[in-house]
Amino acid sequence: MDFNSFLTSLGTSFLIFVVLMLLFAWLSKKPGNAVVYYPNRILKGLDPVEGGSRTRNPFAWIHEAMSASEQDVISMSGFDTAVYFVFLGTVLGILVLSGIVLLPVLLPVSATSGKSTSATTSNGTFSELDKLSMGNIPEKSPRLWGNLLAVYWVSFVTYYLLWKAYKHVSGLRADALMTPELKPEQFAILVRDVPPVLKGQTKKEHVDSYFKTIYPEKFYRSMVVTDNKEVNKIWKELEGYKKKLARAEAIYAQSKATGKPEGARPTNKIGFLGLCGEKVDSIEYYNGKINELIPKLEEEQKVTLREKQLDAALVFFTNRVTAASAAQSLHAQMVDKWTVVDAPEPRQVIWTNLKIKFFQRQVRQYVVYVIVALAILFYMIPIGFISALTTLDNLKKLIPFIKPVVNVKALKTVLEAYLPQIALIVFLALLPKLLFFLSKAEGIPSLSHAVRAASGKYFYFTVLNVFIGVTVGGTLFTTLKTIEKNPNSTIDLLATGLPGNATFFLTYVALKFFVGYGLELSRIVPLIIYHLKRKYLCKTEAELKEAWCPGDLGYGTRFPGDMLVVTIVLCYSVIAPLIIPFGVVYFGLGWLILRNQALKVYVPAYESYGRMWPHMHTRILAALILYQVTMFGYFGAKKFFYAPLLIPLPILSLLFGYVCSKKFYRFFHDTALEVASHELKEIPNMDQIFRSYIPPSLRSEKSDDDQFEDALSQQVSRSGSFV
Amino acid sequence: MDFNSFLTSLGTSFLIFVVLMLLFAWLSKKPGNAVVYYPNRILKGLDPVEGGSRTRNPFAWIHEAMSASEQDVISMSGFDTAVYFVFLGTVLGILVLSGIVLLPVLLPVSATSGKSTSATTSNGTFSELDKLSMGNIPEKSPRLWGNLLAVYWVSFVTYYLLWKAYKHVSGLRADALMTPELKPEQFAILVRDVPPVLKGQTKKEHVDSYFKTIYPEKFYRSMVVTDNKEVNKIWKELEGYKKKLARAEAIYAQSKATGKPEGARPTNKIGFLGLCGEKVDSIEYYNGKINELIPKLEEEQKVTLREKQLDAALVFFTNRVTAASAAQSLHAQMVDKWTVVDAPEPRQVIWTNLKIKFFQRQVRQYVVYVIVALAILFYMIPIGFISALTTLDNLKKLIPFIKPVVNVKALKTVLEAYLPQIALIVFLALLPKLLFFLSKAEGIPSLSHAVRAASGKYFYFTVLNVFIGVTVGGTLFTTLKTIEKNPNSTIDLLATGLPGNATFFLTYVALKFFVGYGLELSRIVPLIIYHLKRKYLCKTEAELKEAWCPGDLGYGTRFPGDMLVVTIVLCYSVIAPLIIPFGVVYFGLGWLILRNQALKVYVPAYESYGRMWPHMHTRILAALILYQVTMFGYFGAKKFFYAPLLIPLPILSLLFGYVCSKKFYRFFHDTALEVASHELKEIPNMDQIFRSYIPPSLRSEKSDDDQFEDALSQQVSRSGSFV
Repeated sequence: MDFNSFLTSLGTSFLIFVVLMLLFAWLSKKPGNAVVYYPNRILKGLDPVEGGSRTRNPFAWIHEAMSASEQDVISMSGFDTAVYFVFLGTVLGILVLSGIVLLPVLLPVSATSGKSTSATTSNGTFSELDKLSMGNIPEKSPRLWGNLLAVYWVSFVTYYLLWKAYKHVSGLRADALMTPELKPEQFAILVRDVPPVLKGQTKKEHVDSYFKTIYPEKFYRSMVVTDNKEVNKIWKELEGYKKKLARAEAIYAQSKATGKPEGARPTNKIGFLGLCGEKVDSIEYYNGKINELIPKLEEEQKVTLREKQLDAALVFFTNRVTAASAAQSLHAQMVDKWTVVDAPEPRQVIWTNLKIKFFQRQVRQYVVYVIVALAILFYMIPIGFISALTTLDNLKKLIPFIKPVVNVKALKTVLEAYLPQIALIVFLALLPKLLFFLSKAEGIPSLSHAVRAASGKYFYFTVLNVFIGVTVGGTLFTTLKTIEKNPNSTIDLLATGLPGNATFFLTYVALKFFVGYGLELSRIVPLIIYHLKRKYLCKTEAELKEAWCPGDLGYGTRFPGDMLVVTIVLCYSVIAPLIIPFGVVYFGLGWLILRNQALKVYVPAYESYGRMWPHMHTRILAALILYQVTMFGYFGAKKFFYAPLLIPLPILSLLFGYVCSKKFYRFFHDTALEVASHELKEIPNMDQIFRSYIPPSLRSEKSDDDQFEDALSQQVSRSGSFV
Repeated sequence: MDFNSFLTSLGTSFLIFVVLMLLFAWLSKKPGNAVVYYPNRILKGLDPVEGGSRTRNPFAWIHEAMSASEQDVISMSGFDTAVYFVFLGTVLGILVLSGIVLLPVLLPVSATSGKSTSATTSNGTFSELDKLSMGNIPEKSPRLWGNLLAVYWVSFVTYYLLWKAYKHVSGLRADALMTPELKPEQFAILVRDVPPVLKGQTKKEHVDSYFKTIYPEKFYRSMVVTDNKEVNKIWKELEGYKKKLARAEAIYAQSKATGKPEGARPTNKIGFLGLCGEKVDSIEYYNGKINELIPKLEEEQKVTLREKQLDAALVFFTNRVTAASAAQSLHAQMVDKWTVVDAPEPRQVIWTNLKIKFFQRQVRQYVVYVIVALAILFYMIPIGFISALTTLDNLKKLIPFIKPVVNVKALKTVLEAYLPQIALIVFLALLPKLLFFLSKAEGIPSLSHAVRAASGKYFYFTVLNVFIGVTVGGTLFTTLKTIEKNPNSTIDLLATGLPGNATFFLTYVALKFFVGYGLELSRIVPLIIYHLKRKYLCKTEAELKEAWCPGDLGYGTRFPGDMLVVTIVLCYSVIAPLIIPFGVVYFGLGWLILRNQALKVYVPAYESYGRMWPHMHTRILAALILYQVTMFGYFGAKKFFYAPLLIPLPILSLLFGYVCSKKFYRFFHDTALEVASHELKEIPNMDQIFRSYIPPSLRSEKSDDDQFEDALSQQVSRSGSFV
């Protein structure tokens, strides 16, 4: 890639960004689009825009995002989102503080050095930027002292800001957990591996008597987890028919309103996919189906509650401290029986995982780890190929018939600039679903935990495959002989491979923030989908709401992407300091645009009260250690005599990580009792807490909502005679 | 060592054993020795011997030891001792079951093999035993299949018995913890790292209010730990004078009884060590001193309680479950504040360690680890020298003037048999004290924990230095060239080094059990010391009791010694199966003799309810893995084609260890709530529980024993005005 295609890449990216920004300013003003651009506010019952939307400055969102406090973010989007902003802010801080020192110091040092022809920051000829990189400093030059001290500066800035951030997030989490508002999950624990029932006892009696003995005063009641597969199926079918009925009624009302004859009642075919079979009156047909299913559902609910009990239960206490303490205590003499954890929020319980037994969970976990490791290893090969092949010259050789297309001057420049990056981005988009599925298969009981696990896997994948794969693989052909001779010298390889890929990552980061954040802010794709659905599909209010209902911020996949940028920028910060401004723009723009999205668009799917933070912390630290080790290798390659002075840094980082995890980590795993012992606003309504955990498919259709309890008490008192 | 010196060694050991046994049978019958041979029974208020001691069969103790049940051991000597017997029994079982199969199978296989001159089980010429070892089987012979299967047999026997033992010990621990008897430590937790006190609050108020908020109903009261250095000093001085006074009075009474004139009151000099200075009347002098010290002690007690409070406290709850659960729960948001652990028994609290701060404990721990690692590394050198030098030939070369002595035929044989072993045993006797001191310096709060930590260090030391050191070092000169060329091949080295040292270890084990257990049973040394003290030193009853008062079983140092034997016997079990009977005798004799000692002699110093077991389990497993790895190496050295079939074994062992630790371990660290929730025999007398933790130096001299409480309540209510 030469300097021209680099500039083209940057220019095009910026152009796209500007276009998307203008689009956003224009589209977001239209009242009809409010549900796409302000769904979070609308769902919370607020005006889409404070003040009228007409007179509004199109860039007012920037001011609003800047001036929103952390408390605003928390109240609009929850603690997890606030923690994500702490992450963005911390990284931004690290890069800004690094840049303030590194840019004015290192750039002149490099630029005024005698020319060194041996090193280059790009695989092509790219001497304009080379001059500003560490490659321009000759070997053994005393000027390298500047670079060495820069590594120390970056490290200490990172330690300082990470420490501050961990303390801050710990405080946030404490605030969240001690709020006087009622949170059902603070009164419950999840019990798994309930041992076999004694003779003449139901499972519920078994659980009840066990916990009543231990907590005679604070035990409220238990809910034995049932196998809901069957009842869920019936319930889903019923809900489907209800929706269809509502839709048919809406169509009918519409047609009546437009003055069509009474006979134009909607009809449908009852055969395969509604495409064939007998034609029936929809309203009557769905009503009939619903009436048929309701008693079936009720019957199945009773059967489920009575006979399909699994070896897991939710146990409720009348007091937050007892629940918090119970979740941390060993209950049974055999550790694989009566295992307890914090109850997840009702909305994030993964019910189907609760029945999985202790050792099966361990086995599943290791099996998943092995699969992920294999996936990481075998994706390595295609990534290596992609980065080696997607230079135009190679492509032309491989696919000769694209030669005439590619030889058009303008097209060639664009293609050359984007090809490798696009390949990479598309490739990475395929992965998160698979990793989330694998994480769920581990037997994790809560959604947020599964997201964290998937996010971790994605992080390893990204850093190992994209960063290390591209770095080492990109220079694979040039260093093939070195590898063959000495396969152990990975650090050296990384150190020599890194500088050659600086411009690749420079454009990669730029593409990511200009195009990625542009698309994010303008919400072009959701907008188009919403308008299409509204026009051709949605008939009822509920359907319409479903069409615009926003998702989650999705930091589970966002975060590994960010971490890749952190890793890249840190590793290049001293080698090619010019990357720091790119990193600053990435995290600055991200902070700003996502703050807007968090305040106005996304609705959190769950709340884990910042449990993601320790992972974020550890991974920033891991990136830092990778950077320190790489720099040690690179200084070695520069034959700098004082390179060993860098050895204390990785040790210091490990020590820092150890101290942090000792001081802060356990509070992110367990609830501290001093936090749980804060007063509540009101006396908890235990019945309501209990009810919030009843899965929708088991909730009674009857208005008094008492069936669950009935069935349960029946089952307790009479199950012997019933079964 | 030739065959003759081997037989001499065995014979001499056996002779010593027989003499000691006869001595024991004779001495233990004398009523005057009862306090040496039956102190545990006497202290428990039982008759020294059931039935009269005159008519008793001198070998009745064997029958009594055999027929004593585990419950008897527990009631006489506590759970920790019972667990030690589970360890002895398990190892004995492993060796017996292994021997039953290995001896009849492997010995004929080896004996009937064609002679192989390449291998030898001893460093000298020793062909009589060589014929029965694996070394006699030629390379690549299909007969090696037998040995390979034997490795599998030993491994599976070990897994089976270890599993059974772990389950059994877990049950024992549960029984111990759920007994309805009152145990003060079950109602208390130890709180450390109390954060700085808020203004206008005393430390006790601070602790009280913190725990009252969290446990409003179950909190009883707290005891802030104080710096007792000063008060302990005064108290010790006072106790010393009291003893001396009692002694002086006893002498005076004696002299009166023997009809000496009234004027012969005992006197002493008050100068340095009682050797110079003014001569005074002892009784008057000591009485004066005591009267002088009592008010001083009382004053110091008040000052200590009021002003020398440290950042640690014992917190008492009115309920076992709450205390057990509190000890496992995170209390503070910052994990390094308000850290909690189970309270140790009052008698095993290491008070001076309680004040050490969280991170200082971490630092101390690692510093100690480094020191121990260095100690292990640097002791390696002398051990290597010892085992290389202490062959007579080498000694003669080094110290030529011993030649005439050594050349006496009989002496030479004995010396040759014992020299290396004696060197080793003396050498090892120096270590435990140092390791215990180091473990205490880690900041561990309880004695039993410090003993466990010291025992672990001693184990590593023993196995690494004695076993591996002797094995590799003993053949150091012969394999020097191999090491120089390839320093990585440690497994190979071990595999080739092992067979050459079989006879060394054979005699080592025999010496250990014959002489070691002979001395143990006959208690010659304590007997002599007791009689000397009784005759020349003791004047009062208390002094006499102190003279015979038995120690602890001391399994902290016993166990690493046993583990060395386990490691040796396991590693040689297939190479030289003849070692198995030696191992069986070692553990059989040990079981029998120590059972007698546990029932009649030793008094446990503390009770940890079997917390040692997980360490024992892990270390037996570690010995097994070492054995499996070594065998893999040895089969490789034998060029046996199917040697890789042994690879699954270490993996299986790791898996087994993982499953065991997952299933059982946490219960040995924390108290399971289901166990703690068992009913008590009586309503706990909380005041008594609280009082049992008051250190003796702070206990009031006054009869009503209320001063501590007074001082405490004073300090709570009035400390502001006092200080």
